[in-house]
Amino acid sequence: MSTEDESLELHKRLRGKIRIESKVPIQDRRDLSLVYTPGVGAVSSAIAADPALAWQLTGRGNTVAVISDGSAVLGLGDIGPAAALPVMEGKCALFKEFAAIDAVPIVIGVRAVEDIVAVVKALAPSFGAINLEDISAPRCFEIEERLKQELDIPVMHDDQHGTAVVVLAGLLNAAAVAGRDLADMSITVNGVGAAGTAIVRLIRSAAPSARIRAVDSRGIIAEARADLSPEKLRLIADGSIDGSEGGSLQDSLYGSDVCIGVSKGNLLSGEDIARMNPSPIIFALANPVPEIMPDKALAAGAMIVATGRSDFPNQINNVLAYPGIFRGVLDIRAGAITEEMKLAAARALAGVVR
Amino acid sequence: MSTEDESLELHKRLRGKIRIESKVPIQDRRDLSLVYTPGVGAVSSAIAADPALAWQLTGRGNTVAVISDGSAVLGLGDIGPAAALPVMEGKCALFKEFAAIDAVPIVIGVRAVEDIVAVVKALAPSFGAINLEDISAPRCFEIEERLKQELDIPVMHDDQHGTAVVVLAGLLNAAAVAGRDLADMSITVNGVGAAGTAIVRLIRSAAPSARIRAVDSRGIIAEARADLSPEKLRLIADGSIDGSEGGSLQDSLYGSDVCIGVSKGNLLSGEDIARMNPSPIIFALANPVPEIMPDKALAAGAMIVATGRSDFPNQINNVLAYPGIFRGVLDIRAGAITEEMKLAAARALAGVVR
Repeated sequence: MSTEDESLELHKRLRGKIRIESKVPIQDRRDLSLVYTPGVGAVSSAIAADPALAWQLTGRGNTVAVISDGSAVLGLGDIGPAAALPVMEGKCALFKEFAAIDAVPIVIGVRAVEDIVAVVKALAPSFGAINLEDISAPRCFEIEERLKQELDIPVMHDDQHGTAVVVLAGLLNAAAVAGRDLADMSITVNGVGAAGTAIVRLIRSAAPSARIRAVDSRGIIAEARADLSPEKLRLIADGSIDGSEGGSLQDSLYGSDVCIGVSKGNLLSGEDIARMNPSPIIFALANPVPEIMPDKALAAGAMIVATGRSDFPNQINNVLAYPGIFRGVLDIRAGAITEEMKLAAARALAGVVR
Repeated sequence: MSTEDESLELHKRLRGKIRIESKVPIQDRRDLSLVYTPGVGAVSSAIAADPALAWQLTGRGNTVAVISDGSAVLGLGDIGPAAALPVMEGKCALFKEFAAIDAVPIVIGVRAVEDIVAVVKALAPSFGAINLEDISAPRCFEIEERLKQELDIPVMHDDQHGTAVVVLAGLLNAAAVAGRDLADMSITVNGVGAAGTAIVRLIRSAAPSARIRAVDSRGIIAEARADLSPEKLRLIADGSIDGSEGGSLQDSLYGSDVCIGVSKGNLLSGEDIARMNPSPIIFALANPVPEIMPDKALAAGAMIVATGRSDFPNQINNVLAYPGIFRGVLDIRAGAITEEMKLAAARALAGVVR
């Protein structure tokens, strides 16, 4: 049976991948009076007097909402909230298995930035942190930014920052294997959506002197272009990328040591790889079809090739990062996930497999 | 240790009364590829093609949201969402223990009818049914009405209808014990908030010919009054209550066979009971202090006395109803909870203890 068919069978049998359990047996009147009325009244009164007690007396401090509008799900795109639910349930199962976090899958039937912000803000008192998931660019940038400003619990769009953390972790180790310094490298990031934007920024934080260029479907993100979104302009303005010279993807690859693809399958040829500096590092992360197949990239001279697929060596998968990141912020009751935390997570992750 | 102290200790130890578990072990790459990418993609694609499959392939069909704004929690009143969370967690634990339902506690930080309706509608694709909880009157009426009209999954405000079901169940059995027919009875309902309104309506459905009068803090709900809310006027207009004559609570009790109190503690005296028809039935459901203590009511001539307290005989507690009601609508994938279902639930519940 194919993985797809086996997964369908599993889902039909399970009817959902997570379940809720009571932590305490409720066998008699006494149990009932402790978990519910009248006993619970004392707990509610205590929190009403000191709201911070919610972190000690309820599950809030170990609970994360995994929220999606279903607008950019896996490689499937805009399939809507109902169809996004199995993916969110999967993330929640992984949150539990890998980080002992109680995560709740929430798919929402609204799309406007203002509406999503309002819904997530309304839900915030129930949760210790918010994992935004599979929300399409460019809305994802504004939604996350607004929520980070307006809420006092951590908010992270995993497609951006979880991906950036695992990519940086992989890049740190690839550089180590190659015996090179990230700071001296020239890096092309192909794809400037949710993931590409965050990858660029996090690599910049880790390597202020590296040359980073970003490429979208129309070429290198450069000052001379008149068609750039505010988010792409900001990448130039804040120094995340070198936008001094325009050109094609091929122009950017020329002289690059690293190519990170978060765009579309089959976008890179052997000739493109050959155009790069000697023994380049290739992360072809498009799913399910990478920008270039590993054997082809290696044949063209690549030294290290990673993909997003579990059936090839060197898989880069954000499930390596998000459970631990949220575990960390919940444990210290952080109010936000900072750039420093993401850097620390990438370095820690790289250290695990060194 | 008091129940309150013991409950506080329990909550401190547990840090929340429910937990989330993965239904499937995730031990290796193969497991990961089935519950998450790439396998889950086939599940999402199947639901995208036929949204009804979400009921078979996700947990939606067994999941209920328990949603509160914290505006009318237990006897504590408006304590806000954070302090309401322990109560919602308790309900969710009971949903699991009594009906094998996966219920998610959600406390929300918005108050306007329009905002609550918008948030609950946005959340609906994640859930098989919605349990509204501890939302103050009169907003609770409009919020529930709007959501019932605008959503195609069951929505029930438990403080209204769960309470009405258990009260009717108790009343059916009290009438049987007393050897009387509900249809011939004269009933006073004291308290016309969320619970009182729904109790009046459900008793009317069960006993079209009974005389029912409703009393608020200003007296009998009657046509002559100029201070009635739209909801109270509607009780008269739709024939739920006899609003032909005004008067005091005492005027209403005179000639009544039944008094159902859902108002405030210590509101009824022995003289009030003595004023009623011989051997009356008294449901003194205010919590934690009943409208009259059972011993006092019995001394004044009451035949049957019930309260909301677990430490007195004849407890009437809506935990008897809501788990089974939601279990039923989820099992048949009903789109709504109807008056007929509530009547059936009350009769079934009465039958259990006959």
